[in-house]
Amino acid sequence: MAKRKKKILGKLKVMALGGLNEIGKNMTVVEYGDDIIIIDSGLGFPDDDMLGIDLVIPDITYLEQNRDKIRGIFLTHGHEDHIGSLPYVLRSLDVPVYGTRLTLGIVRNKLEEHGLNGKVNLNTVTAGDHIKAGVFDVEFIRVNHSIADACCLAIMTPLGYVVHSGDFKLDLTPIEGEMMDITRLGEIGKEGVTLLMCESTNVEHPGYTPTERKVGRSFESIFSANIDKRIIIATFSSNVHRVQQIINTSVRHNRKVAITGRSMLNIVKSAVELGYMDVPKGVLIDMNEINRYPKNQITVITTGSQGEPMSALYRIAFGAHDKITPGREDLIVISAHAIPGNEKLVGNITNELLRSGASVFHDAGIEVHVSGHACQEEIKLMHALVKPKYFMPVHGEFKHLYQHKELANAMGETDDRIFVMDIGQVLEIDENGAKINGIVPAGKVLIDGSGVGDVGNIVLRDRRLLSQDGIIIVVAGVDIQERYLVSGPDIVSRGFVYVRESEELMEEVRHLAYEAIEKCLDNGVTDWTNLKNQVRDSIGKYVYQQTKRKPMILPIIMNV
Amino acid sequence: MAKRKKKILGKLKVMALGGLNEIGKNMTVVEYGDDIIIIDSGLGFPDDDMLGIDLVIPDITYLEQNRDKIRGIFLTHGHEDHIGSLPYVLRSLDVPVYGTRLTLGIVRNKLEEHGLNGKVNLNTVTAGDHIKAGVFDVEFIRVNHSIADACCLAIMTPLGYVVHSGDFKLDLTPIEGEMMDITRLGEIGKEGVTLLMCESTNVEHPGYTPTERKVGRSFESIFSANIDKRIIIATFSSNVHRVQQIINTSVRHNRKVAITGRSMLNIVKSAVELGYMDVPKGVLIDMNEINRYPKNQITVITTGSQGEPMSALYRIAFGAHDKITPGREDLIVISAHAIPGNEKLVGNITNELLRSGASVFHDAGIEVHVSGHACQEEIKLMHALVKPKYFMPVHGEFKHLYQHKELANAMGETDDRIFVMDIGQVLEIDENGAKINGIVPAGKVLIDGSGVGDVGNIVLRDRRLLSQDGIIIVVAGVDIQERYLVSGPDIVSRGFVYVRESEELMEEVRHLAYEAIEKCLDNGVTDWTNLKNQVRDSIGKYVYQQTKRKPMILPIIMNV
Repeated sequence: MAKRKKKILGKLKVMALGGLNEIGKNMTVVEYGDDIIIIDSGLGFPDDDMLGIDLVIPDITYLEQNRDKIRGIFLTHGHEDHIGSLPYVLRSLDVPVYGTRLTLGIVRNKLEEHGLNGKVNLNTVTAGDHIKAGVFDVEFIRVNHSIADACCLAIMTPLGYVVHSGDFKLDLTPIEGEMMDITRLGEIGKEGVTLLMCESTNVEHPGYTPTERKVGRSFESIFSANIDKRIIIATFSSNVHRVQQIINTSVRHNRKVAITGRSMLNIVKSAVELGYMDVPKGVLIDMNEINRYPKNQITVITTGSQGEPMSALYRIAFGAHDKITPGREDLIVISAHAIPGNEKLVGNITNELLRSGASVFHDAGIEVHVSGHACQEEIKLMHALVKPKYFMPVHGEFKHLYQHKELANAMGETDDRIFVMDIGQVLEIDENGAKINGIVPAGKVLIDGSGVGDVGNIVLRDRRLLSQDGIIIVVAGVDIQERYLVSGPDIVSRGFVYVRESEELMEEVRHLAYEAIEKCLDNGVTDWTNLKNQVRDSIGKYVYQQTKRKPMILPIIMNV
Repeated sequence: MAKRKKKILGKLKVMALGGLNEIGKNMTVVEYGDDIIIIDSGLGFPDDDMLGIDLVIPDITYLEQNRDKIRGIFLTHGHEDHIGSLPYVLRSLDVPVYGTRLTLGIVRNKLEEHGLNGKVNLNTVTAGDHIKAGVFDVEFIRVNHSIADACCLAIMTPLGYVVHSGDFKLDLTPIEGEMMDITRLGEIGKEGVTLLMCESTNVEHPGYTPTERKVGRSFESIFSANIDKRIIIATFSSNVHRVQQIINTSVRHNRKVAITGRSMLNIVKSAVELGYMDVPKGVLIDMNEINRYPKNQITVITTGSQGEPMSALYRIAFGAHDKITPGREDLIVISAHAIPGNEKLVGNITNELLRSGASVFHDAGIEVHVSGHACQEEIKLMHALVKPKYFMPVHGEFKHLYQHKELANAMGETDDRIFVMDIGQVLEIDENGAKINGIVPAGKVLIDGSGVGDVGNIVLRDRRLLSQDGIIIVVAGVDIQERYLVSGPDIVSRGFVYVRESEELMEEVRHLAYEAIEKCLDNGVTDWTNLKNQVRDSIGKYVYQQTKRKPMILPIIMNV
């Protein structure tokens, strides 16, 4: 072999703007010289203490500062935690987006809702495709997951391959399409992979995740044993394969299928149009038609498997669905596992459904759900195939990332080659090695209604205070020149006590406010901040002593 | 045998004031003629939408209306969901309380905190004791549970036995004391039981709950494998047997034991004093002394196994504990199972502890916790021994009660003999049969600070509104006679937007308020409600259009 002339290489930088030490909001940046590519653009859901917040998206300050370098956003699949922040990010960054057909189908629906359709450069790819993006070559490789058309990415960089697993599992018998392309991953592994980023969602679970077909077998036995019932199945709308299996089972049992729930209707429509689902003619019927058939010839597919308030299943359970009233003739199957934090919501719905006389199956009893994420053995397989030089666990809380590190240790990867990182931290790789070097802006941008980032810590702190003990407002009109109280003080409270039953308490609050204001005016206080503090202190002390509560106390003094 | 003269019998009434279709707040009433006895007096924890609420207790209106009939409160064991509302109930009802030694020891601590010590008629019983209470004879029968000295009750009534299981499991090898007295239950079953009330907590779980000793074996292997570590174990303070096992294992491994967390200190003190725990001299040391020993000669027992904010384990994890800073030399064992709703809190603590370099074990990996409640086979054993004529499943949400009904069906009990009920509903039993007949007041009384029942739906609705989008307050001084605006309108908001970054929005809100008020005054509106509505509508519409938020809008108009 001829000697190759050694080129002086630059530095490869890899950083996550989301998905480390948190669930969701996945976004990873790969940078070399003047080129940046972005992997995924997800959203997260608010923590319990982010009151009133609808969604959380990544802070993309770093991308905005380097907008000219960005060669594209590469989407691994169409779940919210991987595409959900696109409408916000694309308003600020005018860059091409790459994804498979179903992924972009879902993205298009989303952009339409935000009035961005047609304004974005969307590029459809197929598993196996290579996209040149500046200095990078990005290859889409098929994986299995709980949504169709999911890929992982192998990015050829001047410093070798960077592999990002996306979300994946290995399904040897997928419902549609191919098994995860472990052969190609093995080939890339043989060529040499500099860095693996691998998801950690199920790293606490030993063994393998079962095939999606297992759920199909459960459906088959449920349908066979319940020929006298209307069967209502709730699942994730994006789980096209699950929906396909429900339809297949229904067809075999001569049932018509009706769909309820906006996102379910949207995705089934997209999936059928794009050829990801195969529905024989005459099987799907409109919800308006279900009462034309005997109940036991109907299957209903619905959203709400997480117990979400006002989802279709929630409305069915609580008597607020205009087409379905549950009863003894209904069997409801919750084909999903409650995401941590949603157990109570799902439990509430189950209680209501059972109360109506309906039967309810969920995954505690019979296997009506399998995960879309790799368990320990599949994660090990990824490591074994890719044989990375360096490894960064991604997608998980610290405990997941840490356990993934330990699992990598068990695969022979040593701690000096493993980087358990936080969002914003920069992993810098060059010919000499890899190290964490530097930090870029990263964090949570909160979405509340149409507001992006206008609710911060102060507003949230106030919401928490208000939510705990409510507010007492003291209004007074003062002539500050002549220093006398013109009107008030009036006391208004919300969320504190039921005022009609606490008249004495409120009257004493008014009296204390009056005294505090008069005293200040008598003492020549002209500083309103001081006056307000006096009012606040006096009332606050009394109220706490009487009720052991600390409502927000808001004095408003008007100069009349 | 001589013919017995048939006596004309009255009606036996049984009703739950708590514990049906809910978790916790257990309280059951048994009534015959002029006699009432009460089984347990528990508390519940607030639902997620009960913002700011600390505790929930039963509505005891029915008991207050019949206070002269009450012969006593009979406590099955010392857990909060069975004794927690006593301080509130006993303030209103002056009745004797019966319970075992440890149960009353815990009750005494609680009454002391409420300033009620010495004012209550507490009567200590031992398993096997009979208490005459009006027409009733109440027998305390030993059961196993996750707290020592737990009993179920067999109540002889003029219509035969009523058995209430309390909380129970069957432990063939208990740490201290006797196995559940299944012999006595069988004897009572042979005599004939009219009504069984049996708990339903674990009715969804097949099989048997393992013995508490299993946890001891796990501790033994953990201690043996970690002789180089300080071992910190979090568990429920009331689980005296668990704490005993930790101490036993520590003694075998020559470790000193220190205790942190107020409730843990209290209960260990009571348990040692009352002889429920056996601690060799010199083993327990003060937290202040732990640094006098090498770390690997120390065991720390702590509260916080549910991740409760500001519990001792929480403070350890988040660097706020004054004696313990976790690190590589620490092994933390969370010897508990996260109660639904607490998973995230426990996860947060785990993440923080791992981040410090400490190792963390919880029940997902190694068996460091067993339940205190009967699984399906033990529940069946209760039914098989007691052979009740009628059955009422208790302690659970509807799904638990319903599944318990199905389990009773499998034991041969038919639906006409099973009563799945709600709180307040009265089960009426006489010689002819049993039926649900009538209803008494029942519900949730909310405790917020020192307030009992003064926070109701209106206050909670306001707290929810405030928590979501905050509040905008409009203050104006109006001369209503002369119909002109004297001062304002001033706009103050909290929890809505960060005002400094939304000056334009707030200025427009002020302008709209001004316009609405002026228009009303010009049009001769003198009705303030009308004026306020105009202001609210005008601002509400604009704010929603601009932000898609619906803050509470509170106009305060002062007559100047």
